[in-house]
Amino acid sequence: MLRIAALEKLVHQLNRLPGIGPKTAQRLAYQILREPELSTGLQEALVAVRETVHLCERCFSYTDEPTACRYCADTSRKDDVICVVEEPSDIVRVESSGAFRGRYHVLHGAISPLDGVGPDDLKIRELLSRIEESQGSAPITEVILALDPDLEGDTTVLYLAKILTERGLKATRIASGVPLGSDIDYVDDRTLGRALENRVEL
Amino acid sequence: MLRIAALEKLVHQLNRLPGIGPKTAQRLAYQILREPELSTGLQEALVAVRETVHLCERCFSYTDEPTACRYCADTSRKDDVICVVEEPSDIVRVESSGAFRGRYHVLHGAISPLDGVGPDDLKIRELLSRIEESQGSAPITEVILALDPDLEGDTTVLYLAKILTERGLKATRIASGVPLGSDIDYVDDRTLGRALENRVEL
Repeated sequence: MLRIAALEKLVHQLNRLPGIGPKTAQRLAYQILREPELSTGLQEALVAVRETVHLCERCFSYTDEPTACRYCADTSRKDDVICVVEEPSDIVRVESSGAFRGRYHVLHGAISPLDGVGPDDLKIRELLSRIEESQGSAPITEVILALDPDLEGDTTVLYLAKILTERGLKATRIASGVPLGSDIDYVDDRTLGRALENRVEL
Repeated sequence: MLRIAALEKLVHQLNRLPGIGPKTAQRLAYQILREPELSTGLQEALVAVRETVHLCERCFSYTDEPTACRYCADTSRKDDVICVVEEPSDIVRVESSGAFRGRYHVLHGAISPLDGVGPDDLKIRELLSRIEESQGSAPITEVILALDPDLEGDTTVLYLAKILTERGLKATRIASGVPLGSDIDYVDDRTLGRALENRVEL
């Protein structure tokens, strides 16, 4: 690397991005040096995102609307069912399935004692007060947990299921099993085990 | 992708970086949203690079020094031999070989008619006037062409060799051949062909 302080700093910052190693960061930095327009474009985009994008007050997804995001503001959606996801990007995945027309709630992570993430670090308190507030007008009756089928997701599901059923709500979790169009030969043991366990009566 | 204008713009800008596809750009944008500190750090680094890094007036490498870069300012280097490279990053490679202690000159590319890059788009005119100016005090006698051994590099070498020898200078090109520590079994035909052609008498 050319020993130029500002250039080294840029490489360091690019290197902090997920999946960008030191070598890639160097290549990107040189390209940014070659194309000043790339640098200003990127800078403007970073500023615009910081200035306009914030969390939705209700579901905690990202939005550039002043208060409620487009999913919370959409009056054609059902109010009695809420889909809980780990990250805002998960909403896009659920939406593109076309199988859900209710409201969303983003936890911003999952319980992970190893990483020091407890229930209080997630938007769980906000979920519960949202459910409580709904009881008067348009009560939430079902909470669908669309969390990742991994250790952290499982822990969070167990935790939430207990709290939610205690409050008399129906708590469900999206099914795990053999992906559509796949070959049973190539599905891993745990997924196939789960698919057998959760078999559906015909 | 969440339909947020500023976020989509950031993804677009990240996608313009070399080797960053749309999916990676999305992942980076979400990470930048999660960590505002990443966004400000990157922005500051971009601004610092634009404000402090510029081309060296003599060799056209990048520098943050007011006039000459560290290689041009270094009085312990030989003035009679100049190493011509395509990109500033190539200087670092030549330096780390430890086999060169002269001056550098960066062309900022190579002749490529297919991409519309002709001799006038490169720092060739600047190289020639640099050589001319040197004739009075500390004359440059040899020009080492450390260009890539590809079509563009070959074309540029042919072009420069003609001009330089016409001016009575010694023009050399770095050797191509079998890389040290490699296995002849795995070297491609053209490289091995070149290695045989350019065999060195013992």
